[in-house]
Amino acid sequence: MSKGNLIVGQSGGCTAVINSSLAGVVEAALSSDQVGEVYGMRHGIEGLLTSDVIDLRREPRDVWRSIRRTPSAALGSGRYKLRDEEFHTILEALQRLDVRYFVYIGGNDSADTAHRVSLAARQEGYELYAVSVPKTIDNDLPHTDHCPGYGSIARFVSTVTQEIGLDTEAMRRVDPVKILEVMGRDAGWVAASAALGRRRESDAPHLIYVPERPFSREGFLRDVRECYETHGYVVAVVTETVRDESGESVARTDPVFSQDSFGHRYLTGAASYLCDLVARELGLRARFDKPGTIQRMSIAMASPVDLDEAYTVGRHAAVSALAGEDDRMVGIERVSNSPYVSRPGLVELTSVANQQKLLPEEYLDPGRAHVSPAFIEYALPLIGGEATTFPRLHGFPVG
Amino acid sequence: MSKGNLIVGQSGGCTAVINSSLAGVVEAALSSDQVGEVYGMRHGIEGLLTSDVIDLRREPRDVWRSIRRTPSAALGSGRYKLRDEEFHTILEALQRLDVRYFVYIGGNDSADTAHRVSLAARQEGYELYAVSVPKTIDNDLPHTDHCPGYGSIARFVSTVTQEIGLDTEAMRRVDPVKILEVMGRDAGWVAASAALGRRRESDAPHLIYVPERPFSREGFLRDVRECYETHGYVVAVVTETVRDESGESVARTDPVFSQDSFGHRYLTGAASYLCDLVARELGLRARFDKPGTIQRMSIAMASPVDLDEAYTVGRHAAVSALAGEDDRMVGIERVSNSPYVSRPGLVELTSVANQQKLLPEEYLDPGRAHVSPAFIEYALPLIGGEATTFPRLHGFPVG
Repeated sequence: MSKGNLIVGQSGGCTAVINSSLAGVVEAALSSDQVGEVYGMRHGIEGLLTSDVIDLRREPRDVWRSIRRTPSAALGSGRYKLRDEEFHTILEALQRLDVRYFVYIGGNDSADTAHRVSLAARQEGYELYAVSVPKTIDNDLPHTDHCPGYGSIARFVSTVTQEIGLDTEAMRRVDPVKILEVMGRDAGWVAASAALGRRRESDAPHLIYVPERPFSREGFLRDVRECYETHGYVVAVVTETVRDESGESVARTDPVFSQDSFGHRYLTGAASYLCDLVARELGLRARFDKPGTIQRMSIAMASPVDLDEAYTVGRHAAVSALAGEDDRMVGIERVSNSPYVSRPGLVELTSVANQQKLLPEEYLDPGRAHVSPAFIEYALPLIGGEATTFPRLHGFPVG
Repeated sequence: MSKGNLIVGQSGGCTAVINSSLAGVVEAALSSDQVGEVYGMRHGIEGLLTSDVIDLRREPRDVWRSIRRTPSAALGSGRYKLRDEEFHTILEALQRLDVRYFVYIGGNDSADTAHRVSLAARQEGYELYAVSVPKTIDNDLPHTDHCPGYGSIARFVSTVTQEIGLDTEAMRRVDPVKILEVMGRDAGWVAASAALGRRRESDAPHLIYVPERPFSREGFLRDVRECYETHGYVVAVVTETVRDESGESVARTDPVFSQDSFGHRYLTGAASYLCDLVARELGLRARFDKPGTIQRMSIAMASPVDLDEAYTVGRHAAVSALAGEDDRMVGIERVSNSPYVSRPGLVELTSVANQQKLLPEEYLDPGRAHVSPAFIEYALPLIGGEATTFPRLHGFPVG
């Protein structure tokens, strides 16, 4: 009864839950007698281009259960952008493998790839059903309430912000300023999530800087000084990509760093630069934490809601392709907030590809470098349970 | 029946389990009718010096159970080094508070403080029982099998090393070199722990650089190139304090960075510098993760063995002081390795204060930048359970 084979690929930055989506796709394919072979592209579309494809029916059936709780991308990932002349090779490969169902897990660029593959097949009259699965810790895909991967990184960032807040408070006589640098391409969703465990005005994070707002050195130094005077310590969260009014990375346009006698321009990170700026201008010792890939990979801190939804959207993508849907992305629709209920839907790939959803104004505090209550209401259910907070000794006055 | 009051303080860098030790001290004190008041110094010895002391009997009794699983230092910590002329003020404060039991939780410097307080009391004929509780993620205190705080950071570092290993492997066509910068003053115990989840030659970490061995730029570049050629990607773990043959931080003695036209010397971190070096010399894209305080604060990844031992040594310190012990530190003795059993003991503070236990030669691989099986045997029981490892797809050849 097989109508053809299915191929699945993973693309873009890894997350804690992208393998949960893969398991959803593969388990749906394996349980359908409409599907012949189930293939995996290695390192995304590049695997299909170079015939680097593996046969997923040969994996032990129970591997998919453990893959659901394994971070990273089990098939390998990449950021390959197909050139126009390569679509012919892609189509040939799909025909050779008799693939009729194409499922691609990734972010904005991957949605574009899936869309263009669908288009190329249609143009050549090759019957193909292409559906993409959203995945990005950046949470910046439009037409979906949120993206798988975001809930888990938000849980990680909100938890460690409370932990490093306690650390910085305890060590404030030594290193009173801490800067946490988090991921985010052009959007500040990840930085914003740092606020989810905050209970009181004095709790970390005291300041949140997102790319949606131009970064001002003077404003930043004023904020840090004020927080230090109020609380005795400061925890500031900054997106790695914050830019100043000129649109350039904050570290690059500082006159002290912009040139050196060897012509070598050292590309330091935002937080490292800001620590130096705080020490230089305010005379306060500042240190930074840059969890890097750790923040997107932590299974110990993964959101159970995110793990489940990632699986669900993966399944839904495979089932939709089998049902004849093409040129679509699975989106997540929020049915209710309390209790939190969501369901998968379908959106047109053209409305998603290469688009970005930035933090809207109503999720930011109008007066200061922080988020609004509306953002908390939006993001809190996604981390799957209460944000981690900790008790304090009552005899220890709140700073 | 009270024979006097007890005071407890926390000092040095925070850990995930230093509050477990605090709870051990306080619960032992509260349950003894030999103790009158139970005081806490805020921010370590500085709190005693400035009369910044809180009454711990006024805390709700059940707070100690939740404090056991709260990272950081609930009393506040610090790095204050007492000057000779300040011991008089300390003795006056102890007399005024009628403190007879002095329990101090910290690392090398804190052991020195406890020793000098004990000595000062003896010299002035003031009856005082001073016992210190070991605490340091650096794991560098002598005369104890290991230090509370180490097992938890080792669990964190070994877990995230596997996670970022999977990430780097999946993303190797984009960013094939990852450098993880971890804590460690003069000792490489933390960096070494990155190896605890490694199962196969191809697993991360591929390279481990510790301060016990002088760092050679040429050797490092050769190692990275070799690993890249063998595995297609590289995860190197480096202690933040690695120094080159001259004994200077590796970032500071590079000619490209050692001067600039403004006379401003930018103090970059080791990993950030090494990424730049790899890009410059090998033409490979490299990124770094620097978990900073996150690595020492994570409760989600805390070692259950460490949490228990931290509590036990805290209790033992209070009980020992009450039994008339003075000028002692609680040490941990390993009774058996399999099953892992430990018990607390007492060592003389003079043999601990200002001493450092570095990684011994037999814990390092003689031929390459890695640890030996003897180190794994030593450290594995301390993380409390199996190191986290993850399944892989069988069709995905091992690189």
